[in-house]
Amino acid sequence: MTTRLLIIGGSDAGISAGLRARELDPHCEVTIVLADRFPNYSICGLPFYLSGEVPDWHWLAHRTAEDIAREGIHLLLDSTAQAIDPANHLVTIRDEAGKTRQLPYDRLVIATGAVPVRPRIPGIDLSGVYLLRSMQDSFAVHEYLDTHAPASAVIVGGGYIGMEMADAFVQLGLAVTVVEHGASVLKTVDESLGKQVLAELRHHGVEVATGVAVERIAQAGTQLRVMGSEGFSVTADLVLVAVSVRPQTELAEAAGIATGERQAIRVTRAMETTVPDIYAAGDCVETWHRLLNAPTYLPLGTTAHKQGRIAGENAVGGHREFAGTLGTQVVKVETTSWDHKVYYPGAHEMHIRVTGDRKTGRLLGAQMVGHSQSEVAKRIDVFATALFHGMRVDDLNELDLSYTPPVSSPWDPVQTSAQAWVEQCQNGE
Amino acid sequence: MTTRLLIIGGSDAGISAGLRARELDPHCEVTIVLADRFPNYSICGLPFYLSGEVPDWHWLAHRTAEDIAREGIHLLLDSTAQAIDPANHLVTIRDEAGKTRQLPYDRLVIATGAVPVRPRIPGIDLSGVYLLRSMQDSFAVHEYLDTHAPASAVIVGGGYIGMEMADAFVQLGLAVTVVEHGASVLKTVDESLGKQVLAELRHHGVEVATGVAVERIAQAGTQLRVMGSEGFSVTADLVLVAVSVRPQTELAEAAGIATGERQAIRVTRAMETTVPDIYAAGDCVETWHRLLNAPTYLPLGTTAHKQGRIAGENAVGGHREFAGTLGTQVVKVETTSWDHKVYYPGAHEMHIRVTGDRKTGRLLGAQMVGHSQSEVAKRIDVFATALFHGMRVDDLNELDLSYTPPVSSPWDPVQTSAQAWVEQCQNGE
Repeated sequence: MTTRLLIIGGSDAGISAGLRARELDPHCEVTIVLADRFPNYSICGLPFYLSGEVPDWHWLAHRTAEDIAREGIHLLLDSTAQAIDPANHLVTIRDEAGKTRQLPYDRLVIATGAVPVRPRIPGIDLSGVYLLRSMQDSFAVHEYLDTHAPASAVIVGGGYIGMEMADAFVQLGLAVTVVEHGASVLKTVDESLGKQVLAELRHHGVEVATGVAVERIAQAGTQLRVMGSEGFSVTADLVLVAVSVRPQTELAEAAGIATGERQAIRVTRAMETTVPDIYAAGDCVETWHRLLNAPTYLPLGTTAHKQGRIAGENAVGGHREFAGTLGTQVVKVETTSWDHKVYYPGAHEMHIRVTGDRKTGRLLGAQMVGHSQSEVAKRIDVFATALFHGMRVDDLNELDLSYTPPVSSPWDPVQTSAQAWVEQCQNGE
Repeated sequence: MTTRLLIIGGSDAGISAGLRARELDPHCEVTIVLADRFPNYSICGLPFYLSGEVPDWHWLAHRTAEDIAREGIHLLLDSTAQAIDPANHLVTIRDEAGKTRQLPYDRLVIATGAVPVRPRIPGIDLSGVYLLRSMQDSFAVHEYLDTHAPASAVIVGGGYIGMEMADAFVQLGLAVTVVEHGASVLKTVDESLGKQVLAELRHHGVEVATGVAVERIAQAGTQLRVMGSEGFSVTADLVLVAVSVRPQTELAEAAGIATGERQAIRVTRAMETTVPDIYAAGDCVETWHRLLNAPTYLPLGTTAHKQGRIAGENAVGGHREFAGTLGTQVVKVETTSWDHKVYYPGAHEMHIRVTGDRKTGRLLGAQMVGHSQSEVAKRIDVFATALFHGMRVDDLNELDLSYTPPVSSPWDPVQTSAQAWVEQCQNGE
């Protein structure tokens, strides 16, 4: 029997599901419905397209529509799913021309992703105010940059997209102000490390206002004025709002599918929703956390790829379970630091924070700030692999890590930071 | 009771043992006997000192003699151990002036390291022929470079020291020829990857002769002629011999301590020798291999640090065991390759070879060739951490590794290579 697999959403999770299903069951019929013409685009790459580091937006595609079609997947571009009828296994699709029709499915994967939160502040709809999530958002910003040649920008939100966009705008020569509600930027890391990133931004000429709630955006001649608490008021040519995202789950909820954490779709570790034959994956779902042993909402591209792959596998009869996220993340902001033997030229300073359980000695997390050429990302991945296996901090010293003076020390910084943690613990600090 | 800990050898293993002992038992008396004046020098760093990348040899010290003394360790410089008397717990020491005396110990750590193998070929003792292991060797080469300004060099041996020295000499503007007995360079990696390194060397103007056994070195005017099988004959100003090393164990053997693999000192995983109260660590001992579950001879600086630390801990009453080596190693040779999302500028090509057990799917090893800025070393360490935990190749996909376009892809190359291995396995390739 041929399985008809219908997938709603053509970004990381949806495409991964389709590809995996076809890989395991070459007879299954896979159809992917997507709202725009840009399947499998790297939205994580948008800031690097806008900075000009990636000169052509086509390069952002993990795969082209032709690549996907070649795998035997049918793509319905510029189409949106209007309603799911679980009882009859039907989805109502509306095409570009506004025509609707019903598509049957044996298995359905919902991969509708997330949308940026649009804060309810007066002026948010003014021309020159942008949110960044889709290729279209990105084109709009790009066109504005091209046609208006803005000299200044305000970024609302000091999360990782805010950081990457600050970096991008600085590279384009704009005067940049970041406004953040919290005490520092990058809330996902400890404040002390966040402050180092903040210092680096300031070193690159970025103005950063922390502890400020944005209250209003207003037209000021040809410019925009952003006003907030603590008397904050800055005028700029362009405003980019990047406060947070929320799972896009209206379609699923209307079909009676349960949601949970942060209103994301509730899923098992096999990526099944509460409704039979319907799976969900990616930024629209709850994500199992390996350490917390509980669902969280942590929308990340890496997780979307993994979950999509599992949903696709299980939709064609597989039995795979998602091993869980650790919230591993890396953000590039220009900075200076050390990494390897200090005697080797080009050694960069590196700051590492290890978190462990004082009672059991178990590793609970690690944070690192360092130069982009100091292998910080993959050092975080050594920690991630250790965390995956529930290692004790002290046992990191047993890892046989590589060493040559140009890239490391005989004890890798991963290990010296573990040694420092153990020592501090023993000294009761 | 105060423990008198005597350590023979002041390189990585010996110093690590002394520091760890003092850290855990501040009352123990630690004396380290070393043959030269250079405790805790990074011999792994010698090629980078000779290339000029490390301008001052003092920078090669992990710690200075003062740093070590400050930890309460007594250093006997320019002294050698002549004999061990296990029955009476005495070691005969000969100082710089040739005077001998006997030192008592409660616990002894032998950390005499390794010495370069001196191939028995005519001409090996000619002036201008060098071996590279100690600071003195390094000074001799450095002085020759300074005073003779050689224009060409022959390197005998295409192992990692041969590679690093080829790199160093090229940077100094010398015409370099590498002679290797095997079919390619870097025997510790698969031939296909070794050949990539070889191609890169040639791209940098290095002549490489493989499959050639060196038979003779002869004076040729002010130069040296190196002759070998296959009619090989090259004349150069300087010859560096770096074929392999052997454990320095004469002292231990004379004291009745058993040796094993490659005549290295036999030790338990607690770093105990076959004689009570005598421990050994570093390049002079057998090393437990975590995957082979057997002793091997794999002299590496990282392992020496770990083993020394364990020997020091156990010598003052600890009960720690060496977790085993995986043979993790990294070598820097200038090269070109990819690492992250191809659309991000500066992406480098990267070649990865995964080895797994077809029956069980278990990961057995990984090899990687890539640009030094493409985080290859720490990617190898992700594999090393996975290997440490006995992961299956397929399960590498479950790791929550970090991603942002400038440094990686949503599936890290570690994972895409694992996926490729699984696919090839399923296709019976």
